[in-house]
Amino acid sequence: MTAATMRASLLLAPEDLQIRDVPRPEPRPGDVLVRIEQVGLCGSDVHFFQHGRVGSLVVTDPLILGHEAAGVISAVGAGVATERLGERVAIEPQRHCRECSFCLDGRYNLCEQMEFASAPPVHGAFAEYMAVPAIFAHPIPEAMTFEQAALAEPLSVGLAAVRKVPVTENRVLVAGGGPIGVLTAAAAQAHGAREVVLTDPIPARRELAMKLGASYAVGPNELPDHVGRGFEVFIDTSGAPPAIDAGLHALRPGAGAVLLGMGHDRIDLDLFRVQSYELHLHGLFRYARTWPSAIDLIARGVVDVQPLISDRTGLAGLPEAMRRNGDPDVMKILVNPRRHDA
Amino acid sequence: MTAATMRASLLLAPEDLQIRDVPRPEPRPGDVLVRIEQVGLCGSDVHFFQHGRVGSLVVTDPLILGHEAAGVISAVGAGVATERLGERVAIEPQRHCRECSFCLDGRYNLCEQMEFASAPPVHGAFAEYMAVPAIFAHPIPEAMTFEQAALAEPLSVGLAAVRKVPVTENRVLVAGGGPIGVLTAAAAQAHGAREVVLTDPIPARRELAMKLGASYAVGPNELPDHVGRGFEVFIDTSGAPPAIDAGLHALRPGAGAVLLGMGHDRIDLDLFRVQSYELHLHGLFRYARTWPSAIDLIARGVVDVQPLISDRTGLAGLPEAMRRNGDPDVMKILVNPRRHDA
Amino acid sequence: MTAATMRASLLLAPEDLQIRDVPRPEPRPGDVLVRIEQVGLCGSDVHFFQHGRVGSLVVTDPLILGHEAAGVISAVGAGVATERLGERVAIEPQRHCRECSFCLDGRYNLCEQMEFASAPPVHGAFAEYMAVPAIFAHPIPEAMTFEQAALAEPLSVGLAAVRKVPVTENRVLVAGGGPIGVLTAAAAQAHGAREVVLTDPIPARRELAMKLGASYAVGPNELPDHVGRGFEVFIDTSGAPPAIDAGLHALRPGAGAVLLGMGHDRIDLDLFRVQSYELHLHGLFRYARTWPSAIDLIARGVVDVQPLISDRTGLAGLPEAMRRNGDPDVMKILVNPRRHDA
Amino acid sequence: MTAATMRASLLLAPEDLQIRDVPRPEPRPGDVLVRIEQVGLCGSDVHFFQHGRVGSLVVTDPLILGHEAAGVISAVGAGVATERLGERVAIEPQRHCRECSFCLDGRYNLCEQMEFASAPPVHGAFAEYMAVPAIFAHPIPEAMTFEQAALAEPLSVGLAAVRKVPVTENRVLVAGGGPIGVLTAAAAQAHGAREVVLTDPIPARRELAMKLGASYAVGPNELPDHVGRGFEVFIDTSGAPPAIDAGLHALRPGAGAVLLGMGHDRIDLDLFRVQSYELHLHGLFRYARTWPSAIDLIARGVVDVQPLISDRTGLAGLPEAMRRNGDPDVMKILVNPRRHDA
Repeated sequence: MTAATMRASLLLAPEDLQIRDVPRPEPRPGDVLVRIEQVGLCGSDVHFFQHGRVGSLVVTDPLILGHEAAGVISAVGAGVATERLGERVAIEPQRHCRECSFCLDGRYNLCEQMEFASAPPVHGAFAEYMAVPAIFAHPIPEAMTFEQAALAEPLSVGLAAVRKVPVTENRVLVAGGGPIGVLTAAAAQAHGAREVVLTDPIPARRELAMKLGASYAVGPNELPDHVGRGFEVFIDTSGAPPAIDAGLHALRPGAGAVLLGMGHDRIDLDLFRVQSYELHLHGLFRYARTWPSAIDLIARGVVDVQPLISDRTGLAGLPEAMRRNGDPDVMKILVNPRRHDA
Repeated sequence: MTAATMRASLLLAPEDLQIRDVPRPEPRPGDVLVRIEQVGLCGSDVHFFQHGRVGSLVVTDPLILGHEAAGVISAVGAGVATERLGERVAIEPQRHCRECSFCLDGRYNLCEQMEFASAPPVHGAFAEYMAVPAIFAHPIPEAMTFEQAALAEPLSVGLAAVRKVPVTENRVLVAGGGPIGVLTAAAAQAHGAREVVLTDPIPARRELAMKLGASYAVGPNELPDHVGRGFEVFIDTSGAPPAIDAGLHALRPGAGAVLLGMGHDRIDLDLFRVQSYELHLHGLFRYARTWPSAIDLIARGVVDVQPLISDRTGLAGLPEAMRRNGDPDVMKILVNPRRHDA
Repeated sequence: MTAATMRASLLLAPEDLQIRDVPRPEPRPGDVLVRIEQVGLCGSDVHFFQHGRVGSLVVTDPLILGHEAAGVISAVGAGVATERLGERVAIEPQRHCRECSFCLDGRYNLCEQMEFASAPPVHGAFAEYMAVPAIFAHPIPEAMTFEQAALAEPLSVGLAAVRKVPVTENRVLVAGGGPIGVLTAAAAQAHGAREVVLTDPIPARRELAMKLGASYAVGPNELPDHVGRGFEVFIDTSGAPPAIDAGLHALRPGAGAVLLGMGHDRIDLDLFRVQSYELHLHGLFRYARTWPSAIDLIARGVVDVQPLISDRTGLAGLPEAMRRNGDPDVMKILVNPRRHDA
Repeated sequence: MTAATMRASLLLAPEDLQIRDVPRPEPRPGDVLVRIEQVGLCGSDVHFFQHGRVGSLVVTDPLILGHEAAGVISAVGAGVATERLGERVAIEPQRHCRECSFCLDGRYNLCEQMEFASAPPVHGAFAEYMAVPAIFAHPIPEAMTFEQAALAEPLSVGLAAVRKVPVTENRVLVAGGGPIGVLTAAAAQAHGAREVVLTDPIPARRELAMKLGASYAVGPNELPDHVGRGFEVFIDTSGAPPAIDAGLHALRPGAGAVLLGMGHDRIDLDLFRVQSYELHLHGLFRYARTWPSAIDLIARGVVDVQPLISDRTGLAGLPEAMRRNGDPDVMKILVNPRRHDA
């Protein structure tokens, strides 16, 4: 049997994306092969596109980016029930070793041998097919579109964030109104926050945050007076040092913060405030066990991801999408690898 | 009835401590009056002595310092059982409002109206008597000395620290071998840590740490290889930015840190490490509900505070003790306000 | 000054309620006097009315029942700001000692010296006035009615229940469709439960549960198939041993249950199931720190308590209301102690 | 290649154990083959021996019992480093699916597809060899004997129990002085309990409990007065309904209990006490992630398992050991499957 091929978008060098025919991946034992229908474009994809690296992760060989994906199971590996063929799924883009202490503890996002799709040298989803562990091809309801399903990934980040801090019954401040910020605000609402205030300098993003459930959305320096007594929770998705500093100072004593926005490796931290207010700061590294909830929240309409979609394209349109992704009016661009135009 | 007086050491200005006769405090309803027998000298006392302030707390009126105290109940306020007269007690130097949200939540250390002994304008324990809430005059066993009882205060800091992080069954790194550092190490051992490693540049402090139960005590740059895989917990008591940075980098993914060492209001934080390792950082502001456990640990000999005592003096010797407190060979100087020689 | 009087409903003996003029209570220091506007009738009131006791609590002297109350602050005790005069409030019917270990721990519902309104010998709210700690006269928004505010009490029970178990993102089974049951279901939804299924034999109660946010409401033996894999949480509000047994058997391994429904002092427990499924069972004793959240949930319309109100009466109608309270069509009867007709 | 054989003790029917030559197991991919050196005899082994079943688990085919085992790695399956050959190990007798929701959550003891050694139809350790997942062949230090290593299993039960409740700094009551009871008491001490009181009717067991670290060991009805105020934690290892009832009534409000002692499928529970004291009851089903800690505690001498060993035998002595296991003077009998006498 001749090896099957597929079309894929390969990053060859910074700013150099090429569509190529590459071997279609074979599902390993326990895997399924997913025919990709929709993939969201993420800021980290763009960072790889622009710089060829993120932190210590360097693209040395041609790499398929993309990790916010949904599709249909088209083949199954050894040990996977053939009943799953044809199943519509949202993809959790992780492959953990299942053996290290972190995996055994249920914190598989910290797995010592994690293979994360789109992080070199592991291929991602901007291609016609992708092989993933069967357990991470999460079934979606019939009524859910692939576009919605792809957005279970950024919603998972928001869910992972709100699980780290006591948002339920509490006041939550979210800094940053990009896709992660507004979905974090939505996740906080879904977890029963008393009030969710989002800050962003861009009015359009604030409007979107309001649509997705923020109680207030204001400019970075416009926190309303009635919340002057302080928030119990702050979640930074902006990565901007001034926003982090302002957020920490908006907290009540004993409060908690999740700092997930990236961009600055080191920040100047007001340690005295952290101590005298007894604050709790949490880093966040991806997610574990979020897909079933993310899918459920989207399916029940608790979180409406539709307004996040700014544009749609195919693999051919990916370079342009990469370049446009930082524009203030762009939230989420969805890529359909099966679309042959654009 | 003429108001009774007492001898007290008053801080009048930086570096200016004077012994004066001042009115003996009257126990309020619910209070007891404690005849002070022993008071430990704390670094924050010394900071007030040297600078007349700590952060935003400024000494404007003559102030009695000292908050690591033990003594005997000599009078009771309205509503307190007279059976408590003569009781030997360790003093928890806090007076909370019992009404704010923090008090109702059991986090009274964060009380919005806290009156903390020795923090201006609230008088402390370098005096013959002190009035404290009856519930915070904690009874001590007959066999416990007042010196031991006074050290329930710094041990309380250690207990408060180890309660913030999962030390039980885990590897714990403590930076800083002053009294708080070694008692934090001892508290971690008492909580069932698997291994407690303390770092300090001063060999004598490392020896003391070993006596109090550290598994290893090494210089700041001498972490043993076999713990190279990382600690689950880091507690900084040094306040030194390089120690904080080194400590955070010695942690495993998913680990927790308590940063309680003071000295630098702002630090340069490796946010990328916090994020990519999903670390948890906790501030600590004093303590709540620690005295019964601290007294019990000392009483059972689980924590031996005796080796911490470097010297003893009376009120007259306090200025000199203040000046010596930073010396490398000084751990804890105990002050007996009833001792009339130097 | 002659002592002021007020009208009150006194329980003199089982089934013997009398309206009398009694001395109006004086607010103690830290108290406020509340002019009562609305009081919900609770099953425990009815139990006292019928039997003159609940467990070891026996009514020996004439007792004012009622503890689901709201009103207006008409006088303040020493130390309370006069600005609070005229404030509309929901009453948390507790008075804790603020000194025992439970109070210091923030679990004041377990206070060793608790004085709970309407539990003998502490008078309750079926009267024109009631003195309560100022901190437990919780301000309500202008738009909230006293009827809604009175129902913050049963909602508080529901909130206390859902705080004991991980309802967020999970499937929750609630047994019993009385006021506590439907408000517990509503509280679970407010906390972000994935699905809330309520069981009750009475169709009208199931309908009401659906109105307040249950995902499904079915008869006790009609649990839908698709939840056959089991719930993560079970909350019993029925007190019925068969419902408790069925609920525990509907749980997944590792799940949690709150058993708050009263009625049977001892039950036959399937210990083997508890062990082999590693279940977690929680008792619940009243509430602590729930009023601010309960008021907020009602104010924001997240929980709509209005449909719970079955009838309204004055003090004169209380005996009849007591007798009707067990009827299947009665959920919550509200008593206005200022209403002078029946 | 002819299939290798090994000597094994097979349970053919109740009370009918036979030594047979059976095929030596082949390590599957990811497995190691362990040459068994020591196996502890557990009460559940005896129950299978006597009744041919435990609950719904029925022995239909010849079964090798035994699951408290230690030995030497003598072969490795595919994917396991050959460096592990010759490694001395304690065996965690579990094989989980690594794919179900419980495994992904880190609660693999609740795995839906668990294969537990010695639970039919999965063979156990009373044999010369046993194949186990490489990750569950836990390395032991050179100085540790196989006898000590085998006892990491019952200590794991104790560790799993004390992890469910807040034993640290608290008073703990343990009912039952069999191997699990005394090791649970030891685990509570290792976790920093303030006081551990064990109850058992047999004086010899109480003496042993004292040796392993109980603060007091008394008869079931002899709880000392000074603990009359109650325990924060109760752990039942006896399975005796009166002991469970007495234990629950010895608890303070808000306290927690673990009920792990088996023997009665259903018990009569004082629900009113559970409710009015707001107690928390926990079932326990085996263990997860306990071996590294159990090995460490034994290696450091924190828990001394040696005094538990009552007797030693070979496979031939197993039937007699089974019959003697209930004797009051028998704690733990160790079986060496390589010993050809007895």
